[in-house]
Amino acid sequence: MTAETVDAFHFGGFHVVQPATGGHRSGVDAMLLAAMVPDRGAQKVADLGAGAGAAGLAVASRLAEVDVALIERAPEMAQFARKSIALPQNAHLAARVSVVEADVTLKGRARLAAGLDDEVFDHVIMNPPFNAAADRRAPDALRADAHAMTEGLFESWIRTAGAILKPGGELSLIARPESVAEIIAACGRRFGGLEITLVHPRAGEPAIRMLVSAVKGSRARLVFRAPFVIHLGEAHKFAPDIDDLNNGRAGYRRLISKGFKK
Amino acid sequence: MTAETVDAFHFGGFHVVQPATGGHRSGVDAMLLAAMVPDRGAQKVADLGAGAGAAGLAVASRLAEVDVALIERAPEMAQFARKSIALPQNAHLAARVSVVEADVTLKGRARLAAGLDDEVFDHVIMNPPFNAAADRRAPDALRADAHAMTEGLFESWIRTAGAILKPGGELSLIARPESVAEIIAACGRRFGGLEITLVHPRAGEPAIRMLVSAVKGSRARLVFRAPFVIHLGEAHKFAPDIDDLNNGRAGYRRLISKGFKK
Repeated sequence: MTAETVDAFHFGGFHVVQPATGGHRSGVDAMLLAAMVPDRGAQKVADLGAGAGAAGLAVASRLAEVDVALIERAPEMAQFARKSIALPQNAHLAARVSVVEADVTLKGRARLAAGLDDEVFDHVIMNPPFNAAADRRAPDALRADAHAMTEGLFESWIRTAGAILKPGGELSLIARPESVAEIIAACGRRFGGLEITLVHPRAGEPAIRMLVSAVKGSRARLVFRAPFVIHLGEAHKFAPDIDDLNNGRAGYRRLISKGFKK
Repeated sequence: MTAETVDAFHFGGFHVVQPATGGHRSGVDAMLLAAMVPDRGAQKVADLGAGAGAAGLAVASRLAEVDVALIERAPEMAQFARKSIALPQNAHLAARVSVVEADVTLKGRARLAAGLDDEVFDHVIMNPPFNAAADRRAPDALRADAHAMTEGLFESWIRTAGAILKPGGELSLIARPESVAEIIAACGRRFGGLEITLVHPRAGEPAIRMLVSAVKGSRARLVFRAPFVIHLGEAHKFAPDIDDLNNGRAGYRRLISKGFKK
């Protein structure tokens, strides 16, 4: 049996059960991703490759009218997501969060048969596995699965996002900056109005992450927004704006609403 | 006859003759681009699409051992470049700067016949025409030529840069941020070690320009460096680091020298 931990997020607003050492343990990446879903009342949100559910649960925690589907291929991680939902500390949001055990790279009928229907979601979030195969050898199989970057990954994940989103629906993702060209190519004609926010650990240092927002069917041009800087000076704690996003006290809105110029 | 102006750059370190109203008048974009050439003693630098020569002259002004070829297709702009070199104020660098009237999009024998030989330059700089065709109608033909973005522009310009650079040579360019995917695609297997610096007019505002550095033959991965912010607060004057680059008092070095990890 895999050792597990129960971790509090959003100052205890919700908890996540996740493997203690293997797999992809969630943290600030998942919280920044969750902050990208705007408050628009009742909405259906899909978390592709949800893992133990941290990002999707964070959306449900911050936005009280939102229903969230946690979509995860690995049975062991899907089981952690179910355990997370079943925690007594999550009882206030459990009715709005469900698990779909499915491979997000499925196409056509296979995707529909797995429960991923066309044009049902208002917003799709994703934090795809991001370690390039050549980058390092993951120490265990579960971790290897969570971190393995396969050729064409963004193409297949973003294709599914385009299929399951309603017209005008939004895609939000977090990824490594070196994937920028692959992500833009995968958005192709499916998505437009890309707004990219680079995330730098400190002022003066290169970006380590990239937040991307896109709108299905938009033709608006790509924008690089003002970057995020996680830490101010030499401090270990987060900058106030990042801390608010990390703890569910604020969302991060698009510059151009829905990708269409007003 | 086109009305012209003579403009001082680098606190009078050199001057540029350029059309008073039509064409693409040079300013801070050309100076930031010129700052990307490092001080490595004697080098051959090509300025593709040089216009009246501002960026290339700025390189020659800051780096006393560098020879610069100003490569420009439009006869009228090439003539401005020749007038710039012939100014008495530029006598100290005139012997190191030449004009090649040639279309940088030429291929193969046509390119060689136009005087653009294989593998002769250490560094290529370019500030390609950046206005998308749909963006606005340019008010006069010369300006339209300088600003017209044609399909595949980066592919043809970067192909030529790859041909005329020595192995390990560097490409530096300034462009609009929405061209990021087209530029990365054009670099393809010719260039690697891309280092991108976004340029924001003020903190909190989206980027308006993008500086890209790449190394011929490198396999190093893409990096987004800490961004530039032109103005501090509400001030109209430049931030000190930008002012130094704009006035030739400093260069902007790559993070990873020559694109190969040390």
